Amino acid sequence: MKLYGYWRSSAAYRVRIALNYKGLSAEQYSVNLVNNGGEQHQQQYSALNAQELVPTLVTTDEDGQVFVLTQSLAIIEFLEETYPHNPLLPTRASDKAIVRAMALTIACEMHPLNNLKVLQYLVTDLELGDSAKTMWYHHWINQGFSALEQLLERHSGKFCFGDSISLADLFLVPQVYNAERFKVDMTLFPNIKRVNAQCLTEPAFIDAMPSNQLDAT
Amino acid sequence: MKLYGYWRSSAAYRVRIALNYKGLSAEQYSVNLVNNGGEQHQQQYSALNAQELVPTLVTTDEDGQVFVLTQSLAIIEFLEETYPHNPLLPTRASDKAIVRAMALTIACEMHPLNNLKVLQYLVTDLELGDSAKTMWYHHWINQGFSALEQLLERHSGKFCFGDSISLADLFLVPQVYNAERFKVDMTLFPNIKRVNAQCLTEPAFIDAMPSNQLDAT
Repeated sequence: MKLYGYWRSSAAYRVRIALNYKGLSAEQYSVNLVNNGGEQHQQQYSALNAQELVPTLVTTDEDGQVFVLTQSLAIIEFLEETYPHNPLLPTRASDKAIVRAMALTIACEMHPLNNLKVLQYLVTDLELGDSAKTMWYHHWINQGFSALEQLLERHSGKFCFGDSISLADLFLVPQVYNAERFKVDMTLFPNIKRVNAQCLTEPAFIDAMPSNQLDAT
Repeated sequence: MKLYGYWRSSAAYRVRIALNYKGLSAEQYSVNLVNNGGEQHQQQYSALNAQELVPTLVTTDEDGQVFVLTQSLAIIEFLEETYPHNPLLPTRASDKAIVRAMALTIACEMHPLNNLKVLQYLVTDLELGDSAKTMWYHHWINQGFSALEQLLERHSGKFCFGDSISLADLFLVPQVYNAERFKVDMTLFPNIKRVNAQCLTEPAFIDAMPSNQLDAT
């Protein structure tokens, strides 16, 4: 398998944790989202991923054909189904739904509003200043984490859902990393803070950390 | 089952199609996202859904306990697993991954940037004018649909993925409805336009249309 990612990308970080947790290896290719106007926009990469986003996973399908996969959640669900050991979803459908709702709270309500392309658009195209950009960032992070904190209050144990690592943890940790970069006050979210700290004692998470990637600067 | 939704909500629309397609019935409760400052913010509803978003599905879990489900994709994956007839996902893991990637392109790259709460924030909090709001809307819709158009060019038949209705179609049709409201030029996306028109000949989609809901105004 080949994983195209970038050390600071939250979405690539999620997939790195999944691969580590399942003990799967992938050759890592760095797509620098910042240098040279963003390497994700270069023709060589956009031919692979028309959305010009990381991550992209290149693997083989059931017939042994080269198979290009995009969207971190779709990639992780594929890994979960194809390599069911060290499961990332609970067994019961109702429990899976809670775990997926936690992950989607981050994937659909938080990350899309504060990723690089959106922050760049606010500044470059809408000509917002730094303080408006920061207000925007904090608003959506605080709103999303407030809702997630309540889900964790109800369902968390050591991890987001009970005492086992799940999909939800793979989405939580990169989002907290991102929020800390932007100086969000995480003491407002004690369950999130606690679970994040617990995850970061696990080798699968530690090895996937941005600062531990070869392309980190 | 009880479905809390709103006629114009894209996310509720997705779940309505899923229920219809699987022949499942749910009592429909309207949460008016516009009137009275937004009924989703009222304590009665926020106790059910801390994110103050629609849809919410209330059903029972494997033990017969009342079970509250949020996030449209988590709800639909739950319905898919619990009621496997009229499947919304293909059989092969690699095909599922393509279908999910299509749905997530809409759920993670398009809808979060143009839903009501975000457009309201741009105008009210960031004090952007109507033309900047429209530019923002069109930018993300055109970018997302351009990527999706390429996926459909490769994988679509009558529907988004081959000749069977899938999860991807449930996400596509509400997004096109939304884009048309905001006067996006859909002739740029011939495969999306064609598949959308095909879906809208199917009773499951027709019955779920915003204009066919009891709370439509």
